[in-house]
This record gives sequence, structure tokens and C-alpha cells, in this order.
Amino acid sequence: MKMKVAILQTKVYADKIKNLEQVKSIMERDDVSSCDLVALPEMWNCPYQTENFPIYAEKEDSDYVRELGALAKKHHVYFQAGSIPEVDDAGRVYNTAYTWDREGNLIGKHRKVHLFDIYAHGQQVFKESDTLTAGDTFEVFDTEFGKMAVNICFDIRFPESSRIPTLKGARIILNPGAFNMTTGPAHWELGFRQRAIENQMYMIGAAPSRDKEAGYIAWGHSIIADPWGNVVMQLDEKEGVGIAELDLDEIDRIRGKLPLLSARRTDLYRVEEI
Amino acid sequence: MKMKVAILQTKVYADKIKNLEQVKSIMERDDVSSCDLVALPEMWNCPYQTENFPIYAEKEDSDYVRELGALAKKHHVYFQAGSIPEVDDAGRVYNTAYTWDREGNLIGKHRKVHLFDIYAHGQQVFKESDTLTAGDTFEVFDTEFGKMAVNICFDIRFPESSRIPTLKGARIILNPGAFNMTTGPAHWELGFRQRAIENQMYMIGAAPSRDKEAGYIAWGHSIIADPWGNVVMQLDEKEGVGIAELDLDEIDRIRGKLPLLSARRTDLYRVEEI
Repeated sequence: MKMKVAILQTKVYADKIKNLEQVKSIMERDDVSSCDLVALPEMWNCPYQTENFPIYAEKEDSDYVRELGALAKKHHVYFQAGSIPEVDDAGRVYNTAYTWDREGNLIGKHRKVHLFDIYAHGQQVFKESDTLTAGDTFEVFDTEFGKMAVNICFDIRFPESSRIPTLKGARIILNPGAFNMTTGPAHWELGFRQRAIENQMYMIGAAPSRDKEAGYIAWGHSIIADPWGNVVMQLDEKEGVGIAELDLDEIDRIRGKLPLLSARRTDLYRVEEI
Repeated sequence: MKMKVAILQTKVYADKIKNLEQVKSIMERDDVSSCDLVALPEMWNCPYQTENFPIYAEKEDSDYVRELGALAKKHHVYFQAGSIPEVDDAGRVYNTAYTWDREGNLIGKHRKVHLFDIYAHGQQVFKESDTLTAGDTFEVFDTEFGKMAVNICFDIRFPESSRIPTLKGARIILNPGAFNMTTGPAHWELGFRQRAIENQMYMIGAAPSRDKEAGYIAWGHSIIADPWGNVVMQLDEKEGVGIAELDLDEIDRIRGKLPLLSARRTDLYRVEEI
């Protein structure tokens, strides 16, 4: 079975409506709307700064989020709308990735589980947990292409975050992310490839384009890795759309040749949700 | 703290005594014996064929194994003697990695936990479990350089196999291995780098040199990856000795800057031995 994927490596503007209009416009393109799955970056509608997240946050039942679902239906595509800041009724803000099916039904919702808190020279330089609340679930959802799951950016660094959905049957993980100019060249491609190899699945990573004027400068390099760890497609740092056709039968071929998942020593260890 | 490591990327001869003599001879070299740790490849004393394992197997209390311990003491080095076939009193054969301290005390014993059973075009092409019994423990041992652990070859493919020792405090994992001409170029370097990155530790992989006449042609490419995922040292496919000085303070520096282990969501999931 083949699945055609479009990754929209968009520029992030300060205006969240403009960001939405940009996505709408790109999705009108025939080569995009004819894909089976369209994927957006992490925080594509909000410049990546902790203080912005509460300001840009939308409720799940807002018009803004409804418009995203409508795009899935309009173009009859699976739509993994990257992530956007979400606010719940109690005022907590999350880094949330929604996914809709071709009919515009919300089929997936992942709130970033591992928040990005890092230091340099003893100084905290980025602390998502200042304004964000972490998610606490690892969802897997059904599609006509098999089970899929979503992680967000930093989640990919934790093998558990891919392993748990894999053990629940996920064959594709979408992992929108915005690595930076330090972590990007060092760890981005490697992480996607190794998670694809060890879980024998496709890993899809949509990233925003690089904006040198931004407070947080993103690495870009949206990527797809196949179950053998090959890079099927990788963009550079500029705005752009990446389109690739994935051969999903490759998952079972690789799992048959080099049986890793069935060779796990489930008699010796377990990886499980609490 | 610095630790000087020598990896002996040896050729595997059919004669196991010759293989031992080769190791003895290389360890006489000043640049090797002055190291803190000497590491040998997987199955350095036995051509890598399932039918050979029972024939070459040694008991733990054999003269052959005792001679290895004596080498550690003679040169006053930590000696991770790669792996060799071991036979127990019941006649079961294992792929076993012994480690001795500078005084020649046996401080570590790892029996390969994940046996290498693979297929190609529907045919089983290599099946360690034909003649080998799998190990069932993940040991961590103390050294003057902190806690270390050992995995063997295929073990590296399973994130649990590195994660469990890391959670027990390991700061260095020695992973002797003999990838082949298919898996080597595709997955060898990537695996060492990603395990080093996600566990923020040193990964040391000693491999046998490539012998094109052998039944199983090894990739070679003995490697050390640092906690940021940099390749500190990598050999090519030929016989050789790789020597590197590792800055072990880098482990805490990286763990401090990008706290991954402490950011694990231990409230949401666990990885544990059964």
C-alpha cells in the first residue's frame, strides 16, 4: 500500500491568522491536496517563545481549530496539523497536535509529553514548562493506512515515547518538531533514522522553516525516514513543501527480514505506561 | 576524569590459541598496555558461524579464560575481553563477554541477551539460537571510572538493553559487535551514536576486522561515540588498534545542559526488568 505525504515547511509569522491563511493557501495546490496525508510543523502558528504560548492559545472548540478540521474535509486528506498552543477550560496551556481524518473527524490529539527545558553555561535558556503543562498520554489512532501516533519535538529523544505507541501497533509516527541550530545539526536526522530503525516504522518530521530574525532559530530540515533508516526525503532550511510517496509494505518486509519487535525479550523487561 | 581506551580490531583465525596469542602480543605494546581499558571484539577467538560456537566454547573456570584474566592483571588494565563462546555445566553455550579489573578480578559477565536470528528472501540466513542460549541479565559493574555495562552486538538494536543499565547508573556501555556488510553500513555507526545521545554516555564498540574469506563477513569499523553523539574514533575495516582518551566529565556536562535522563516521565511510563 502506498501513501502520499506532503510536509508543509512553513514560515512562522507573528500573526496567527496569517499563518492559518498561509496553510489554507498551500493546501489549495493540486500537488498537496492530492496527497493522502498533510503534515504541519510544531508551533506553525505561534513564534516559538514561551511567553507567546498563552497568548496564541486556542480552545479545542474554537473557530480556529474548527477551521483546521474543515481543511481536512475540504481536501479529503488526513491532516496532522503539526502543533499549536491549546488552552483548556482551567486555563492550562499545552503544546498540542491535532489530527483529522479525510471527513474532518478529529481522530488524534497529542499534548507534548516531554517539555523542552534546557541550560547553557549553567543558565536556563529555554523552559517550556514556564508556560506549558505537559501531556500525559500516548495515543494511537486508526487510519486506512494502519495505526499512527504523534509525538512532538523533544519527545523523540526518549525511546519510550516511540516504543510505547509502536507496541500499541503504530506503524507511522508523525513527530513535528523545531530543533535549533545546536541540536539540529547534531541530533535531528539521527533521531528520526534511529527511531525508524529500532521500531521498524516510518518517522515523519515536519519542521518550520528557518527565520534568522526569530527569537528561536529553527533548524528546518523536515524529514521522512523509512523502516530501514533511509532518509526518504529531507528539505533544507528554507520554506517549502516536501512530497513523498511511502511504500507501507516496506514495514512488514523489514519486520520480516530482521525481526526486532518480535525479538524483544518480553520475558526479561517491559516498557509500559503507568 | 580521563580514561584511555584501546580497541583491538583483530583478525579472527580458525585456531583459538592463535587468536589468544595475537591478543597477548598486541597487549605487550606500550601504547596498549598503558591504556586504562582494553576492549576486544565479539567472538574474536571463534569464526562467527553458529556451528563453531559449541566447538570453541570454554568453561568459565577453564585455563583459557583464566589466561584472559591474567592479562588484565599483568598489564594492570581493565579488560573487556569482547565475547567468546562459553559452555556451562549443563552443556548450554552462550555468547559471553567477561570483564576483569586491573587486579585480574572478574567484575562483569554479560551473556548476549538478544540472539541474532535473521532472514532474507524468506530464508533464515543466520540463527544464533540454533546453538546458543540467550542470557537473561543486565549487569552493571563498578570501576574507578564509574559504573559500566556490557551489551553484545544485536543487543544494541533494542533501546531497553541500553536504557536498563543506564537507569542502574552505567556511564559507559561496551558493546562488542560484528555487524555484517548489509547491517554495518546501514546501522552500525547510527546505533552507537543514538544510544550515546539518548542515554548521555559513552558507547564503545569493538569489532573484528573484515575477512573476505570468512563465512560471515564483518563490517569492522570499531567505534567510540561520546555523550553528544560525536564519533570520537572510528577504524576502517582493516586489522588495527584504535586508541582514544575519553573525557568522562563530558557525561555530566551534557547531562547538565540537556537534561534527558531526569526529564524522563517516570510518572507516565517505566522501563523495568521483570
